[in-house]
Amino acid sequence: MRNVTKENITEVVTKALSNDIPPRNREVMTSLIRHMHDFCKEVNLTFAEWLSACEFLRRAGDISNEKRNEFILISDILGVEVLVDMLDHRITEGESESTVLGPFYRENPPVLPKGASVIQKNFENSETVKVSGRITDTAGNPIEGVAIDIWEDAPNGLYDLQDPEQPAYNLRGRFTTDENGEYAFIALRPIPYPIPYDGAGGELLKYMGHHPWRPGHIHFMISRIGYQSLISQIYDADTKYLDNDSVFAVKESLIGKFNRAPAGSETDLVLSFDFKLKKASAKTLIAAE
Amino acid sequence: MRNVTKENITEVVTKALSNDIPPRNREVMTSLIRHMHDFCKEVNLTFAEWLSACEFLRRAGDISNEKRNEFILISDILGVEVLVDMLDHRITEGESESTVLGPFYRENPPVLPKGASVIQKNFENSETVKVSGRITDTAGNPIEGVAIDIWEDAPNGLYDLQDPEQPAYNLRGRFTTDENGEYAFIALRPIPYPIPYDGAGGELLKYMGHHPWRPGHIHFMISRIGYQSLISQIYDADTKYLDNDSVFAVKESLIGKFNRAPAGSETDLVLSFDFKLKKASAKTLIAAE
Repeated sequence: MRNVTKENITEVVTKALSNDIPPRNREVMTSLIRHMHDFCKEVNLTFAEWLSACEFLRRAGDISNEKRNEFILISDILGVEVLVDMLDHRITEGESESTVLGPFYRENPPVLPKGASVIQKNFENSETVKVSGRITDTAGNPIEGVAIDIWEDAPNGLYDLQDPEQPAYNLRGRFTTDENGEYAFIALRPIPYPIPYDGAGGELLKYMGHHPWRPGHIHFMISRIGYQSLISQIYDADTKYLDNDSVFAVKESLIGKFNRAPAGSETDLVLSFDFKLKKASAKTLIAAE
Repeated sequence: MRNVTKENITEVVTKALSNDIPPRNREVMTSLIRHMHDFCKEVNLTFAEWLSACEFLRRAGDISNEKRNEFILISDILGVEVLVDMLDHRITEGESESTVLGPFYRENPPVLPKGASVIQKNFENSETVKVSGRITDTAGNPIEGVAIDIWEDAPNGLYDLQDPEQPAYNLRGRFTTDENGEYAFIALRPIPYPIPYDGAGGELLKYMGHHPWRPGHIHFMISRIGYQSLISQIYDADTKYLDNDSVFAVKESLIGKFNRAPAGSETDLVLSFDFKLKKASAKTLIAAE
């Protein structure tokens, strides 16, 4: 391969893969190398653009830390996370749809009883909402004992871990379904917020001419032994950005209506939303244990 | 786009590009997004693999600094830098070939007279070489006053900026061609060395089952107003790794023979190598001013 050319380089690089690597490594790298080379050829990438891209990635590394991975954000902006989620989480008949996890999940939220509030701090001009619903299998049978982690942004557009003014785990909680498969909690109406745009992700948004906003939504992570875990979100039917989410994660089936609560209710609004879980395959069960 | 699917996502993301961005941004991003999505689909990338890739890139960022850009190294390992160099530097009849710049160039090396030595420190078991040749245009007319930066690794496999034991700018120099277009300098015979494999680049090499070694070579950066600059390397005809360079940069036309010097010579070896430069286009001249 001492005569690498534009024509043979992809073959040269993929043939250099060792025969001793696992088949999956070979599959991933062969496809990745081919697509990277095809991209460069297709746009006739210049040396200056290539160097800019390497510097851009270095800046993404500079702003990353244990709490923030800018490469996840970049991948979200390019629609890669939502695509990978769809590829990895194949929907079968009747099952609820998943969507992106996002960068703001925190392990071990407060464990709360059914109907409890996740609000630890009051904000002006915010509306409270009682969210409730049922978790069933795809045949409609209620599932008891399902763990539901929920998290959302505050009315200032920030999650607790972005905002030193909020108590830790504000607007986060872990709930469990009762014998009827029912869950309920009290939260604030989520509002649209911009994904962090002070780093390389923001540079990319600018290069693409795109805004950083996401529609108002509540995150869910739903799991029970014997069922496939579901990472999803409920989108407020009346929020902005449903049709131009900066990370492309909205799905029609995940939109819920925040209705005005009847007079004398404990919250301003009510939202009813059910989820359907798929039974885990034997293979998945073993992997989870 | 509230119903993103595996089928429509590429269209959704590329259509989200603003109408107000420069045409080149649109061209680059449309192709990049399409190839990234096609790659994910082709290999059915899992969520776990995607997350591993994001963490890998974060580690690449962690080990990068002002002296070291791990993303350049990763791109070299994937054959991207050499491809971009070939795409950006189209060879016309009679012109010398270019190859990768690599991560070890330093600005403003010592300016030295024709025939001077770049050796600032002695190493055991090393051989000295007198490198000389002529710089002409593609018609063979000698060019006077061409600036030639050269750099190479020491016999321990390290460049000066990787090695606190070497004087600054050891084995680096800037020379100028005389009225006959001739250049000459004294250096050490370059030896094979591994590209840095203590970071994410090393992880990638391992994943690909590839070694980190490069064949022995001397770097050249050749420039003169009125001519296209040339970034290239001379490869030692008798070095290892000519046929499996870890960054795929070897070209047959860049291989030179290190011959034994006649008895009584000032060096152990001699190497003769000529370069041919292309005249700059009017457009390039303006851009350079």
